Amino acid sequence: MRLGVCYYPEHWPQSEWRNDARRMADIGLSLVRIGEFSWSRIEPNPGQFEWDWMDEAIETLASENLSVILGTPTATPPKWLIDQSPDILAVDRHGRARAFGSRRHYCFSSSTYRSESQRITRAMAERYGQHDAITHWQTDNEYGCHNTVLSYSDQALQRFREWLRDRYGTIQVLNDAWGNVFWSMEYRDFSEVDLPTGAVTELNPSHSLDFRRFSSDMVVEFNREQVNILRDLSPGRAVTHNFMGYFTDFDHHTVGTDLDIATWDAYPLGFLDMSPRPRDEKRQWLRTGHPDLMAFHHDLYHGCAPKWGIMEQQPGPVNWAPHNPAPNPGIVRLWTYEAFGHGATFVNYFRWRQAPFAQEQMHAGLLRPDSEDAPAAGEARACAEELSRLGGHERGRADVALIFDYDDKWFLDVQPQGREYNGLIVAMEAYSGLRTLGLDVDVVSSRADLSGYKLVVAPTLMSPDAALVTRLSQLDATLLLWPRAGSKTTSYQIPKTLPPGPLQELLPLKVARVESLPPACPVEITMPSGSKVSAKLWFEEVETDLEPLAADERGYGAWYQAGNVHYLTTWPEDDFLREILLTLTSTLEIETIDLPKDVRLSRRGDLRITLNFSEQEASTEAAGGPSDPERYVLGGPTLGPAGVAIWKAT
Amino acid sequence: MRLGVCYYPEHWPQSEWRNDARRMADIGLSLVRIGEFSWSRIEPNPGQFEWDWMDEAIETLASENLSVILGTPTATPPKWLIDQSPDILAVDRHGRARAFGSRRHYCFSSSTYRSESQRITRAMAERYGQHDAITHWQTDNEYGCHNTVLSYSDQALQRFREWLRDRYGTIQVLNDAWGNVFWSMEYRDFSEVDLPTGAVTELNPSHSLDFRRFSSDMVVEFNREQVNILRDLSPGRAVTHNFMGYFTDFDHHTVGTDLDIATWDAYPLGFLDMSPRPRDEKRQWLRTGHPDLMAFHHDLYHGCAPKWGIMEQQPGPVNWAPHNPAPNPGIVRLWTYEAFGHGATFVNYFRWRQAPFAQEQMHAGLLRPDSEDAPAAGEARACAEELSRLGGHERGRADVALIFDYDDKWFLDVQPQGREYNGLIVAMEAYSGLRTLGLDVDVVSSRADLSGYKLVVAPTLMSPDAALVTRLSQLDATLLLWPRAGSKTTSYQIPKTLPPGPLQELLPLKVARVESLPPACPVEITMPSGSKVSAKLWFEEVETDLEPLAADERGYGAWYQAGNVHYLTTWPEDDFLREILLTLTSTLEIETIDLPKDVRLSRRGDLRITLNFSEQEASTEAAGGPSDPERYVLGGPTLGPAGVAIWKAT
Amino acid sequence: MRLGVCYYPEHWPQSEWRNDARRMADIGLSLVRIGEFSWSRIEPNPGQFEWDWMDEAIETLASENLSVILGTPTATPPKWLIDQSPDILAVDRHGRARAFGSRRHYCFSSSTYRSESQRITRAMAERYGQHDAITHWQTDNEYGCHNTVLSYSDQALQRFREWLRDRYGTIQVLNDAWGNVFWSMEYRDFSEVDLPTGAVTELNPSHSLDFRRFSSDMVVEFNREQVNILRDLSPGRAVTHNFMGYFTDFDHHTVGTDLDIATWDAYPLGFLDMSPRPRDEKRQWLRTGHPDLMAFHHDLYHGCAPKWGIMEQQPGPVNWAPHNPAPNPGIVRLWTYEAFGHGATFVNYFRWRQAPFAQEQMHAGLLRPDSEDAPAAGEARACAEELSRLGGHERGRADVALIFDYDDKWFLDVQPQGREYNGLIVAMEAYSGLRTLGLDVDVVSSRADLSGYKLVVAPTLMSPDAALVTRLSQLDATLLLWPRAGSKTTSYQIPKTLPPGPLQELLPLKVARVESLPPACPVEITMPSGSKVSAKLWFEEVETDLEPLAADERGYGAWYQAGNVHYLTTWPEDDFLREILLTLTSTLEIETIDLPKDVRLSRRGDLRITLNFSEQEASTEAAGGPSDPERYVLGGPTLGPAGVAIWKAT
Repeated sequence: MRLGVCYYPEHWPQSEWRNDARRMADIGLSLVRIGEFSWSRIEPNPGQFEWDWMDEAIETLASENLSVILGTPTATPPKWLIDQSPDILAVDRHGRARAFGSRRHYCFSSSTYRSESQRITRAMAERYGQHDAITHWQTDNEYGCHNTVLSYSDQALQRFREWLRDRYGTIQVLNDAWGNVFWSMEYRDFSEVDLPTGAVTELNPSHSLDFRRFSSDMVVEFNREQVNILRDLSPGRAVTHNFMGYFTDFDHHTVGTDLDIATWDAYPLGFLDMSPRPRDEKRQWLRTGHPDLMAFHHDLYHGCAPKWGIMEQQPGPVNWAPHNPAPNPGIVRLWTYEAFGHGATFVNYFRWRQAPFAQEQMHAGLLRPDSEDAPAAGEARACAEELSRLGGHERGRADVALIFDYDDKWFLDVQPQGREYNGLIVAMEAYSGLRTLGLDVDVVSSRADLSGYKLVVAPTLMSPDAALVTRLSQLDATLLLWPRAGSKTTSYQIPKTLPPGPLQELLPLKVARVESLPPACPVEITMPSGSKVSAKLWFEEVETDLEPLAADERGYGAWYQAGNVHYLTTWPEDDFLREILLTLTSTLEIETIDLPKDVRLSRRGDLRITLNFSEQEASTEAAGGPSDPERYVLGGPTLGPAGVAIWKAT
Repeated sequence: MRLGVCYYPEHWPQSEWRNDARRMADIGLSLVRIGEFSWSRIEPNPGQFEWDWMDEAIETLASENLSVILGTPTATPPKWLIDQSPDILAVDRHGRARAFGSRRHYCFSSSTYRSESQRITRAMAERYGQHDAITHWQTDNEYGCHNTVLSYSDQALQRFREWLRDRYGTIQVLNDAWGNVFWSMEYRDFSEVDLPTGAVTELNPSHSLDFRRFSSDMVVEFNREQVNILRDLSPGRAVTHNFMGYFTDFDHHTVGTDLDIATWDAYPLGFLDMSPRPRDEKRQWLRTGHPDLMAFHHDLYHGCAPKWGIMEQQPGPVNWAPHNPAPNPGIVRLWTYEAFGHGATFVNYFRWRQAPFAQEQMHAGLLRPDSEDAPAAGEARACAEELSRLGGHERGRADVALIFDYDDKWFLDVQPQGREYNGLIVAMEAYSGLRTLGLDVDVVSSRADLSGYKLVVAPTLMSPDAALVTRLSQLDATLLLWPRAGSKTTSYQIPKTLPPGPLQELLPLKVARVESLPPACPVEITMPSGSKVSAKLWFEEVETDLEPLAADERGYGAWYQAGNVHYLTTWPEDDFLREILLTLTSTLEIETIDLPKDVRLSRRGDLRITLNFSEQEASTEAAGGPSDPERYVLGGPTLGPAGVAIWKAT
Repeated sequence: MRLGVCYYPEHWPQSEWRNDARRMADIGLSLVRIGEFSWSRIEPNPGQFEWDWMDEAIETLASENLSVILGTPTATPPKWLIDQSPDILAVDRHGRARAFGSRRHYCFSSSTYRSESQRITRAMAERYGQHDAITHWQTDNEYGCHNTVLSYSDQALQRFREWLRDRYGTIQVLNDAWGNVFWSMEYRDFSEVDLPTGAVTELNPSHSLDFRRFSSDMVVEFNREQVNILRDLSPGRAVTHNFMGYFTDFDHHTVGTDLDIATWDAYPLGFLDMSPRPRDEKRQWLRTGHPDLMAFHHDLYHGCAPKWGIMEQQPGPVNWAPHNPAPNPGIVRLWTYEAFGHGATFVNYFRWRQAPFAQEQMHAGLLRPDSEDAPAAGEARACAEELSRLGGHERGRADVALIFDYDDKWFLDVQPQGREYNGLIVAMEAYSGLRTLGLDVDVVSSRADLSGYKLVVAPTLMSPDAALVTRLSQLDATLLLWPRAGSKTTSYQIPKTLPPGPLQELLPLKVARVESLPPACPVEITMPSGSKVSAKLWFEEVETDLEPLAADERGYGAWYQAGNVHYLTTWPEDDFLREILLTLTSTLEIETIDLPKDVRLSRRGDLRITLNFSEQEASTEAAGGPSDPERYVLGGPTLGPAGVAIWKAT
């Protein structure tokens, strides 16, 4: 695994570049991302390109054998371009143009901006596409950040109508698919369809869902247009885009089909502060990050492209969360090994030197604004040295797959039915349940090859199509389904045979009635063992000849099994989920480990990586590590705070 | 009491209609509401009417002896009409048109839409006005739902200026009535008056109040225009409109003067979840509904027209509350008897079959989407059978009246003075206090005939006019007034003699100073008995020669009596209110019953109806029921969970 | 100290004016403010002035020897003026004009309104500038109230661009100062700069800060234009403007340079209810006000102009807070003495008679709407009588200064970095810490003369310029700095040498890293004594050779000293601050008193004023008062609830 850094030569005097490059190399970094916000320096006036500085920056980095990831600068169209073509601006749901003054102010549907995006990408690719130092390209930056996938512009409206015509053919097919007879919402022509905003009350969920899909497709198209140019003019280079965390506004799996490497921007402390985790957890992991939040995303983006990496790794306090604590000593190193353990191809720290100006001036870098090393610089150096000794190891296939589809998340966003029913949260809770048992998890699209897994969990399988149902019916693996599986057709209707709809082929069960519950009203579940566990937020009454494996106080089944398919009628709390998973893994002879709350284990090749997220010591043996200190390639049987231990499986 | 159902034949294949009608009849239903969202099917293109399907639907229902309540479809003007006349759209307070895409997107002041509303009403009435199966008409659907009474359109502005000219005659009269000299808000002409929105800070409350009154009048006019057509073209049919719960944006009493039956849409679980009740109560009545919330509305709408009924009764989980639990077994039957006990003329379940598409696809019906019976179907069947045996009984006049005027609610909305001071909440708490003592309550407008009542309670009598004061002074009944009674003139000014203003004719007392208090600062009241009770949110210091019957810690009077008039200077908590009511009813020789928290009692003719809202058994005797099981016409001395018992008073 | 009242003769029949004036004089008032909302009566039609009524009002007041404070009526431009020139209206951040209908609807940048403001001011000054009864002028009313400093109008945009050109000269200087290279935000010309609103995410903080400064300058200009006319046409009269509480949107120190008296509008109960104080404190001081909230503002505005006073003193319940309790008996008198103790030149009660109409009809006055005395009238009368016996005393210089600059507050508003980090709150907590030790405090601008102080505390010294650093380095006083001191350049950049930047001249210390913390994550600090105290919200790691005087659990220093300069790396809780202040004052031989929680002490000349904010008795001796009752000029050794005691220092 390589280490790298994000660098903005245009922010610093040219006289410092050489020294910066030397220090990067000295730390042991080998990758540098540049360029993604530099449009106003590349093209300060319309059509007037200034390449000299970038030529020089790339040469300087190359002279230290640093490989360059070059970013297309389309996340920040300059002011002159906006003034020249205001139709580039995205439009918010109230019809207001989203103004210049920060970044990402463009509309993905703008044909003007599509041309400009290709023009600047072509210009860069023509200039640097064949440069030896350029080994990777990053398209744009953080698609969708700041709520920018959905735009309500005139061009979005025109494109949406075309998209609908392509999808439905005739307006009657659309009317039927959406159920527009309800509330006299029927259209006579595609030109009558508006963007879903500003209505008096809830819009037709089919309308909203299709707009989500359309908007995602615009991102896919936008990205693909850049990728096509890059592949053409810069063959042999890896193309990536840096995804974000807790973000599902476009289909990352589809964007990923155009990428060689899926990268993402990992900010463990910022994400924890902004997450809906309980206050106690936020306090407990204030300066370490939550043991599963980053890992979930690592595994999610692992499933998006042939390789994955971290384009931006938090190196210290950031500027954008409500509260921005400092990582504990050693934690940046731990995060680096967390990525390593999950198979990253590289980890880039963000950023090289803390900028003393503008929006992110309180965002730490490897260097402080006065160019002294920040604490993370030393941790990066340690990682680089250690990693060079570890050698190459590839991530293998896990025993367990977790299916997560973006389309399903949108189904739940559009009509959650229970206010707290969030598709990402339910997936992350399922993931945590698996990870605390020491299991590796492949988070995958339902379109992924599912062969070879022993256990497939699907917390949000809202709307499986016929092909998927067929594939699931042919699975050797055990399949664990959460409530709402198969509860909608792809047009956002309830299946004719009631949920789980086409999954009834796998499971002789019919959901007769559902209820959503406030968080203050948990459901007590009695397990086969007689023990009491908890469920929450959702409960389904089913019709079936199956005997439930667990039931609630009213006697309604909470857990059903039909052959290798298991179905939950409710959202399990940790204790309930744990009992289910222990039962399944025991049957499947998948080995589990009862990990301490703060310790996590992962596998890369024959290496076993253990991390201690707590501020106290922990024992590596609790994660299955050997007692013999000699057997460790890193660390040993005792894990200090933020400790990392690695041994080879025999 | 008849039972019925809401049905949307346009949602289903014509081939299913006959079977649907048969099953309705088989359950014992005799009423079916149709048509209120069907404009795009009646008139799919401008001026092109398609009656065939509706002819057929009505014939099919009639063939099973089902009476039809036909709804005018004006809540959902179709897209072609909006595109043709965008001035139909309501405008929000920021000046943005409220878009097509759901329902109720029209402005009540739009002259274009007034014409269209009459045109489509006339077309339907001409077609079906004399049809034997049509026994009722429903105008539009849920006026004001989704915050649609107030519209800030250009037409609303023009109509508002006319309305003001009609009300005030000259601009100087308006300036004086509003006190516009304050902050130099004086106008020189009616054409200078704007709609009350967008100002830098609070608008003149007189301005805001008059806009509320004007907007209510637009609803009244809109409804009356339809009613006039229906009375003309469809004589002998009952006209109704379906009101909502927790909704006070127009004057239901005035709309009610044009109706034969006031109906409303009763959703006990959804309303509880969205209500400001404490979390414990929401948990306690999660799957049963609160014992007084529906009943309050039953009695409120009972006071709006010669008859009242339920147009939409929740039959299972709904889709629109933050959380949507399933009713406990038997609870739909209990709700049906709750309506019966309060005198309903019919109860219509909403809806026949759960629609698998569009906005309300998660809203339960009597049938599931797969056409199987949902649990409520069985409960409806049981009710139908039982009710047929009970025979006819009319609701009598109660001993107690509770005055609730919409105008008073608007007074409190416009300037609550204490953030939590809500006119509907104070009325509902007064109502609950009475109901837990086993009392029937007539909730009435102050314009109602008050003769014959023994006790009249007025929790929100903000602004009685001279005529009302005269009528109150002639009351035989005891009158119990809450704070703020008579505290404003009809123009929203403080009376010259201070509150209670003209009510000083009845009560020798002057409110010298008022204070509003945070919920965290309750007031301890010492009762005549020496016991301590609580009050909240509001306290008045009065000047009077009367001795207070109860006082706070500072010695300020909390409860005064002058002859048959009682006055509270503070908002009583349950314990305080209970002592007051026990004192008054004891003096008045009104019999009370100390009901268990979850049990309610009501009277219809000589029937006594008792309901158990708890999940435990309760004793009917605790509600005054006989111990002899033989004396019951329904149920018996023990009430199971969701139990109903009815006996005849001797 | 004089007492006065705010009066609106235009609200009342002319026949009552004489009686009103007599009663004012009889109470002992000698000042009356009039006129500030009367534009529509002065100029009911364009150019048509009606002075008769105001002539008469002034004569009537003068006949009772009442001095008049005459307000320019520019806070309420009348409707005809707005209709004639809609460009007067302020524009909100979404681009919507802020409508007529309340007050303060004008944009400070509007050249039309600048002309109108001067026209009406000149008209009034020409009419009354030489009138003997006119002793003071008030410009406008409560600049900025209802969030009106920031306006996003076209004129604001033009003026902002000019302002930037004046400040930066060339666009390249601006680009560098703002760091616009970040995110390609560079401009090619000042005409490309927009107002900072509507961007997709956070704007450049330098951009936002400069707009705050510009907007403040517009207020300064607006006020100065009126002042210049008044000084010209009404020489010898004191000019004031009435500031508000908890309000920092413009630089009051700069506006104050144009005033003779800084006045403010003091509403202790309303401010407490709207403040972020904990609920327990709000309950404790519900009807008395918080002992330091008003005092802080007294001392803040004392530092803004040669003299200070209260233009509006709450006399009873108000109308504008979420909850509006009634002051306890005696509390209006206590507030009057609180102002006296802090050196007020006058206290004006707001308002004479409670208006029965319009927005503030629930706002108490000295008289009730029925013209009877409200409780405050008696308290004012008592104050007038007592004050006449106390004679003249001037406030002296305190031992302690607290520096508070508005520019620093804006720095923290623009990028708080920790959500709860509020510059006004940290200043008020520092102030409370000093006041509970019985210390007088001069709250001053950093531009004030700091000589003579023994202790200077600076809780928010974000961006000291070179001149200030020089002055601080020459201080004899001990200087106590909070975290973030010197953390930004005036252009909103991190200093090249890291914080505290230029203050490193005084303090050999470098802030290497900062973190912000959630309120739920306090920091435990170990004091030199070994005792444990608390800090919160913020922590800095520093590089220094100094030994910390206190440190956190990680060993990071929390309190450093270098000679007479002390530096805190964290926001101290009360217990921590108290220990620091006791240490410093002990060293500096500043006498402190361990005041009870509810008692405060202040000094005016040789008078010592003690106030009891509690509802229980307190001992004056606990505030250093003599035991001999004879030594008191007011009150005595025992303070009743709301009690005031004054003695002469010997």
